[in-house]
Amino acid sequence: MSDGVKINRGLKDVYFERSGVSHIDGKAGELLYRGYTIHDLAEHSTFEEVCYLLIHGELPTSDQLAEFDSALKAARELPDAVFDIIASCKDGHPMDVLRTTVSALAALEPGSAEKGRVGFLKNGIRLTSQVPMIVAAHDRIRNGKDPVAADKTLTHAANWLWMLGGEIPSEAAARLADVDFILHAEHGANASSFAARVTVSTEANLHGAIVTALSTLAGPAHGGAAEDVMKMVHEIGKPENAADYVKAKRANREAVTGFGHRVYRAEDPRARHMREGVRKLGEEKGAPEWYEILQAVVEAMKPYSRHGLNVNVDFYSGVVYQLHGIPMDLYVPIFAIGRMPGWLVQCLEQEERNILLRPLTLYDGPEKRAYVPIGER
Amino acid sequence: MSDGVKINRGLKDVYFERSGVSHIDGKAGELLYRGYTIHDLAEHSTFEEVCYLLIHGELPTSDQLAEFDSALKAARELPDAVFDIIASCKDGHPMDVLRTTVSALAALEPGSAEKGRVGFLKNGIRLTSQVPMIVAAHDRIRNGKDPVAADKTLTHAANWLWMLGGEIPSEAAARLADVDFILHAEHGANASSFAARVTVSTEANLHGAIVTALSTLAGPAHGGAAEDVMKMVHEIGKPENAADYVKAKRANREAVTGFGHRVYRAEDPRARHMREGVRKLGEEKGAPEWYEILQAVVEAMKPYSRHGLNVNVDFYSGVVYQLHGIPMDLYVPIFAIGRMPGWLVQCLEQEERNILLRPLTLYDGPEKRAYVPIGER
Repeated sequence: MSDGVKINRGLKDVYFERSGVSHIDGKAGELLYRGYTIHDLAEHSTFEEVCYLLIHGELPTSDQLAEFDSALKAARELPDAVFDIIASCKDGHPMDVLRTTVSALAALEPGSAEKGRVGFLKNGIRLTSQVPMIVAAHDRIRNGKDPVAADKTLTHAANWLWMLGGEIPSEAAARLADVDFILHAEHGANASSFAARVTVSTEANLHGAIVTALSTLAGPAHGGAAEDVMKMVHEIGKPENAADYVKAKRANREAVTGFGHRVYRAEDPRARHMREGVRKLGEEKGAPEWYEILQAVVEAMKPYSRHGLNVNVDFYSGVVYQLHGIPMDLYVPIFAIGRMPGWLVQCLEQEERNILLRPLTLYDGPEKRAYVPIGER
Repeated sequence: MSDGVKINRGLKDVYFERSGVSHIDGKAGELLYRGYTIHDLAEHSTFEEVCYLLIHGELPTSDQLAEFDSALKAARELPDAVFDIIASCKDGHPMDVLRTTVSALAALEPGSAEKGRVGFLKNGIRLTSQVPMIVAAHDRIRNGKDPVAADKTLTHAANWLWMLGGEIPSEAAARLADVDFILHAEHGANASSFAARVTVSTEANLHGAIVTALSTLAGPAHGGAAEDVMKMVHEIGKPENAADYVKAKRANREAVTGFGHRVYRAEDPRARHMREGVRKLGEEKGAPEWYEILQAVVEAMKPYSRHGLNVNVDFYSGVVYQLHGIPMDLYVPIFAIGRMPGWLVQCLEQEERNILLRPLTLYDGPEKRAYVPIGER
């Protein structure tokens, strides 16, 4: 009815809140967590330390880190009923099973409805430890294997690979998973974190907000890029086919997967750390061709990069998972494992200065009209 | 870092999209679904017809309605595994159990990942029929009773009461539930519908979006008002206590439950239909005091109504449920049953002209700083 109103499609460039967690400079291609560059954190930190940093705002002392790490390790427990629920829907997509199980934990765990900073922290730390357990248990159950019990002496990343494969991973493999989790840990008001904040804005509990985040991450336009890139790499097959593949895509005005990002206009700063991982791991595993195909695609995309089409983090991560023998449908759940602290801290921020997130749609439907009884239609 | 940017807290008054579904005139206290006033629909229509209207944009002919109704009735089926999942977490809050079960259906139902208008419609109609089945089955299972199989000859509302209580409801009771569902069917970009749209914006499937909506509706600031009002009514106890109750609340600057709405500045137009329901049902059940307490609260609130503090729809609905003997923790699930078509149609609209919903937060954290190794902290 009324018009002349500005419609902010996609809420692009609309600020809805202040946040002290991560700073993204899209033009410069810079990402900071609490003031620290993603490069320093990927090179020098651990996922556990990054969790602490994101939640508490400062890097921990040794004692603080030890205490936090103990809490994470102590939380490596799942109620028995969870395994029945996973078994009931084991043939579903791992994201559907993960979301169902996290949702069920709201009903199964004592204190899941506790709110405020204390309640959110307690439940958030618990879920950070439980999410990789659920993903690993589901993958084993669907393959007819028993779940592997968590090892409370291992790091978060090493324990994840242990629960998934039933073997203690090499230090290099555990470190690569650790870096992958650090790179995915937090990214501002991305769609899943934003959706989780909308859920918190109605004073819902943290489990509900994480369920919302999981639903939203599952969309291919958000969490699905690593899988799409891997499919593309398989389709291309060898490095010398990359140029023709890219040309054909561009001629059809189709996007090339793994390039471009709503926020970054320069290269996604997270990409370089995965790029190195792919190169080294490919050599180690005697399969350097994946890296070569990816680099050939990057080369072929160069003429288009002035449109802001730079490689994003998901361009490389899929190949890392593939080299580890991880099935494609676990790529998004792995993203979720890494993003847990980011979701938690976004929810904590929302909860702290809460306001209902409720924008408007501008009505463009029919004018008011009289109801006509069904016999007269 | 950069400042001078406008922060739209709560996204209040921000338009993110056009929508032809419902028109809310907050100042005039008017609500239209596809051009028809909520009053005409509450008085003359049925929930099935309103579902059709919301989805297709026009009131159906008799043939169209019959076909649509058949599809809804045919969808009154649940996979066996659902009952095991409900039993596994039966002691949880009904919203947690409902959300878990809808999430599991994504893993259990064929075609749940189908997208586009056809896929969303198929899954949306299926879920519209399944959501009341899940709520009723859970309530029976937690009370040690067998679930009641759906009756495919009954209306949506009558079948709901049948599955819940195991008795065919009176025409008046079924009609009151029908009107309640009509009043709750759709309400623009409210937090749960908006959150569902954010989920769809990443190209997630409909089950994921409905799960998000359920997580968000579960927050007391969104779906919890009916329950809060009922608690208030119990606290007040008798009509003559209402004035003191309100005075004390206002003196402490506390909100009185059931008054005020983000959008309405006049009376919520849905309220009057429930008000009549409460009055009549209270007389019928020989319990007129609930209505009298509510009206005494309205009277006591009059001095404050110039601040836009008018009664909202949830002010009355809780008492209706109480008079039906429905436990308080089912009030939000009942809201969800009614809101299903609204969520579906909001998701359909989002899907049709999709764009990633990704607003921004303005960084106000620390400036870039150097990483300090843990030994030096």
